[in-house]
Amino acid sequence: MPSYTAPTKDLQFVLHDVLKVSTHDTPGYNELEADFTAAVLDEAGKIASEVLAPLNVVGDTEGCVLENGVVRTPKGFKDAFEQMKEGGWTALDLPEQYGGQNMPYVLGTAVGEMFSAANQAFTMYQGLTHGAASAILAHGTEDQKATYLPYMFSCQWTGTMNLTEPHCGTDLGLMRTKAEPQGDGSYAVTGQKIFISAGEHDMAENIIHLVLAKIPGGPEGIKGVSLFIVPKFLVNDDGSLGERNGVSCGKIEEKMGIHGNSTCVMNYDGAKGWLLGEEHKGMRAMFTMMNEARIGVGMQGLAQAEVAYQNALEYARDRLQGRAVTGDENPDGPADPLIVHPDIRRNLLDQKSFVEGARAFLLWGAKMIDQSHRGGDEAAEGLVSLLTPVIKGFLTDEGFDMTIQAQQVYGGHGYIEEWGMSQFARDARIAMIYEGANGVQALDLVGRKLAQDGGKHVMAFFDIVKNFIKDNADNEALKDDFLEPLKAASKDLQAAGMFFMQNGMKNPNAALAGSYDFMHLFGHVCLGLMWAEMAKAAQEALDAGTTDPDFYQTKLATGRYYMARRLPATAMHLKRIESGADPVMSLEAAHF
Amino acid sequence: MPSYTAPTKDLQFVLHDVLKVSTHDTPGYNELEADFTAAVLDEAGKIASEVLAPLNVVGDTEGCVLENGVVRTPKGFKDAFEQMKEGGWTALDLPEQYGGQNMPYVLGTAVGEMFSAANQAFTMYQGLTHGAASAILAHGTEDQKATYLPYMFSCQWTGTMNLTEPHCGTDLGLMRTKAEPQGDGSYAVTGQKIFISAGEHDMAENIIHLVLAKIPGGPEGIKGVSLFIVPKFLVNDDGSLGERNGVSCGKIEEKMGIHGNSTCVMNYDGAKGWLLGEEHKGMRAMFTMMNEARIGVGMQGLAQAEVAYQNALEYARDRLQGRAVTGDENPDGPADPLIVHPDIRRNLLDQKSFVEGARAFLLWGAKMIDQSHRGGDEAAEGLVSLLTPVIKGFLTDEGFDMTIQAQQVYGGHGYIEEWGMSQFARDARIAMIYEGANGVQALDLVGRKLAQDGGKHVMAFFDIVKNFIKDNADNEALKDDFLEPLKAASKDLQAAGMFFMQNGMKNPNAALAGSYDFMHLFGHVCLGLMWAEMAKAAQEALDAGTTDPDFYQTKLATGRYYMARRLPATAMHLKRIESGADPVMSLEAAHF
Repeated sequence: MPSYTAPTKDLQFVLHDVLKVSTHDTPGYNELEADFTAAVLDEAGKIASEVLAPLNVVGDTEGCVLENGVVRTPKGFKDAFEQMKEGGWTALDLPEQYGGQNMPYVLGTAVGEMFSAANQAFTMYQGLTHGAASAILAHGTEDQKATYLPYMFSCQWTGTMNLTEPHCGTDLGLMRTKAEPQGDGSYAVTGQKIFISAGEHDMAENIIHLVLAKIPGGPEGIKGVSLFIVPKFLVNDDGSLGERNGVSCGKIEEKMGIHGNSTCVMNYDGAKGWLLGEEHKGMRAMFTMMNEARIGVGMQGLAQAEVAYQNALEYARDRLQGRAVTGDENPDGPADPLIVHPDIRRNLLDQKSFVEGARAFLLWGAKMIDQSHRGGDEAAEGLVSLLTPVIKGFLTDEGFDMTIQAQQVYGGHGYIEEWGMSQFARDARIAMIYEGANGVQALDLVGRKLAQDGGKHVMAFFDIVKNFIKDNADNEALKDDFLEPLKAASKDLQAAGMFFMQNGMKNPNAALAGSYDFMHLFGHVCLGLMWAEMAKAAQEALDAGTTDPDFYQTKLATGRYYMARRLPATAMHLKRIESGADPVMSLEAAHF
Repeated sequence: MPSYTAPTKDLQFVLHDVLKVSTHDTPGYNELEADFTAAVLDEAGKIASEVLAPLNVVGDTEGCVLENGVVRTPKGFKDAFEQMKEGGWTALDLPEQYGGQNMPYVLGTAVGEMFSAANQAFTMYQGLTHGAASAILAHGTEDQKATYLPYMFSCQWTGTMNLTEPHCGTDLGLMRTKAEPQGDGSYAVTGQKIFISAGEHDMAENIIHLVLAKIPGGPEGIKGVSLFIVPKFLVNDDGSLGERNGVSCGKIEEKMGIHGNSTCVMNYDGAKGWLLGEEHKGMRAMFTMMNEARIGVGMQGLAQAEVAYQNALEYARDRLQGRAVTGDENPDGPADPLIVHPDIRRNLLDQKSFVEGARAFLLWGAKMIDQSHRGGDEAAEGLVSLLTPVIKGFLTDEGFDMTIQAQQVYGGHGYIEEWGMSQFARDARIAMIYEGANGVQALDLVGRKLAQDGGKHVMAFFDIVKNFIKDNADNEALKDDFLEPLKAASKDLQAAGMFFMQNGMKNPNAALAGSYDFMHLFGHVCLGLMWAEMAKAAQEALDAGTTDPDFYQTKLATGRYYMARRLPATAMHLKRIESGADPVMSLEAAHF
């Protein structure tokens, strides 16, 4: 049975040594003293490893069951969900007005990584509620907020997002679900939505569905889509629950993973709904959820990689197999542990250097969201908006790959469900798909974000890299191992951007054919930058005479690995990008 | 429900246009006229798509069930297995003396790809029998051959390989299963073996287990391992079945995939066994099976990628979603098909260019095995021995990646089991692990094969590449798009080999730390060479005025894609290799 240990020390390192959150001028950050965040992370870590992690395999094995319209979650989920509610873990970073704890998003994200790593399927129930609540918070009337948010913040009621229909996923303009005005301010919502995570279950008194639908007579396509609040049970004026609404779960999907989360076909049969935000502006309102959700999904990629790595590492230390080529390292035993073998180390270091780099990247992104939401920092908002598809696409692609590598360390045992490594891979797989498949993220990055506001956000990113390199030019610890590779990688990224500018105007396909590679190229440069920053922080701690030199030396060694062995991918991505549209577009569809 | 279409035309292209098998001087190849191979492939393709493919999902859903020591295979498997036997498909390339059809291995491999693509779990039952029979053929006494082979060739009896024990997989020297001489020429075999594919099932009258065990008093470690024939039912002198032997299935593993194949824990309790080959030379005998098995596993990687690609392509043509950025391509429909989008094409072309390149590589390898076995060609034997870990490791890693990409084309539907794409990925995953995990393949390649016979086989490989480039230097169709990239990639491979030579002597870890990258680097160069050869063949057909220009133009376009967009990976692998041992070895195990 796999286990999970909360990486509190590593999270603290990023929050304090690297991001230096407590001295940052973002409102609320002054509360983020190291002792405080350590206490929160320790407490959350305990729940993650002791309550959620043991239920992970249970959720996978039992799955959710639909019987007579009611979905039964796996054994133990309900109790664990009560513990999450009681501990106030469901609205850590949401406003106090409706019962939240008002902590910064960066801390909520650090906690979220732990919950996700311990049990992704379980954590989705509250994650989706958080997203739906955020949308109501941003676009709801005062009345709507007062009606729903207190219950949603506490997860007494949970939330969902309803976008996809059988014939349309990414292309929501094709949507058929309709919402007919009833003359009393409500709408009758009718249609079928699929892939609705947590669409129906037995852990909450009510479920608040946010549903995209078209109001008849509105504009064609995506411009005629509105967002509606459709509760499972209607809510009386006094907040008590009224009659059952016309929405039901028609089916639970059999999936590759995240069996503990109910993925539902939801049927709306004239269900009573209320407009959230403006008519025909549903996509805008939905995007409030989606941007947050995309960063949350990027987190899932990292989280599954982390827990898979922890278990692979333990196995590599315990399993005796073969001898080190340079001489026995366990002479008294029948064989040496796996970890003596160079290729096992290569595999583990790929994982470790990704996970730690990704964590820094994610928390940096979360910090920028705080800077934007709490501090009104438009530059931070622009940059994190640019980086959101990179966080989502790159971290989930790589995160999945790392779960596969972790599984590989176990040899045949990795393929047997009993050992739990298969579940990490199967669960991680979904993150590449939902909240916009990664190809769509790449399209968003290259087709929209890159040129946004005259390209000023990507220029700001390059400035950060350039300034870091300039400011640390004399730092001997960084120079050869970190700054040089970062400079080369960043040059590759610039060259790719230049290629798009020079060729994409004449032929958009010349840019779009390279969009996926660009997303990965960008991701590597971000992780390279994170490692350079982490190396700098580690070196500073060592220079200051830290009492824990092994920890910081390990950071430097792991960072050197990333720079030497992972970052060179940028040149390959550039080369692919520079091959342009022809290799991709020249074949007629009929000839594939 | 996914489907499978036999790629007969593509197989014929490789066999005849590229490898020109029927005019090759290998004994038996003169029979491989295009009409003949087409007839065999058509017939096999029919069985694959009509009989085996429809059972693929059934096998995944039902799995195998162990009840009272008896394993029940999924519904329909038994009937399909009878059809395989009746059609003579179980010993296509085995000698006539014992009932085989004596066809070249290259044709057996082409047929095998289809069966594997249609239903990997099912095809393993006969694949393992083929391997066990080959070992008896190579190392058995005349008596053993006469006793077992006629039944095994026909799959009336099936076979297994028993290597792994709970505490040892790769490191077989740790083995505990023992075989005690009984004084009558037989041995009493006692111990537990795990991960035994097809270890117990209901499709054959008898199961012939080949079991590695130690004879007490023999040499320590791997040098004291012998191979034994242990039948499930003892065989009487007249060939009839006698009493049940002391071997039983204790458990079936729950796995990530290949549910249709029973993966058994086998308990040997003083079971009667007979030595196969010499005492303490068990590994040598087992390697007869393993080399063949490794190529067969490489084939599985390609095969799953092929069937996944076929389905992804169909989906990309059918599913309407979004509009082409350069103008509607399906103006009368509500949206354009997915295949208009550059990133979907990038995804599909990654798959297509891999599958077709891998197929050529695999069949080239199979042809060299024929040259060796039928023609006594030592150079071919040496080269295919060098390339076996590349075929196994590279084709299964990439094959799996391609099933993941194919799944991605489906978006959310790819994650739902009903659509079948998840199964391709889950089934393909095992191929990276069994018959020697891919890290072990990389070790075999760099630690053993590369320097074998003074490095002459890798030199021979470079000569093939060099001569191809030289011989075609004036070919305008090849020059820029094929020869230049091939030359650059081959130079990267040589530089990597040079790095190993210069650094590996002083520090073996400097080579081993780069072994995995070297395996992939080598794989890409092989596929680059294959694409250059296929391009040449395609151009020749076009120049000769073929009646099917689209087919050959498509080969050229797909090859150009591989050279432009996939082959640049070689420079990245070289860079990683050249970072040497330090990044991988510097961290102490305790500090990971």
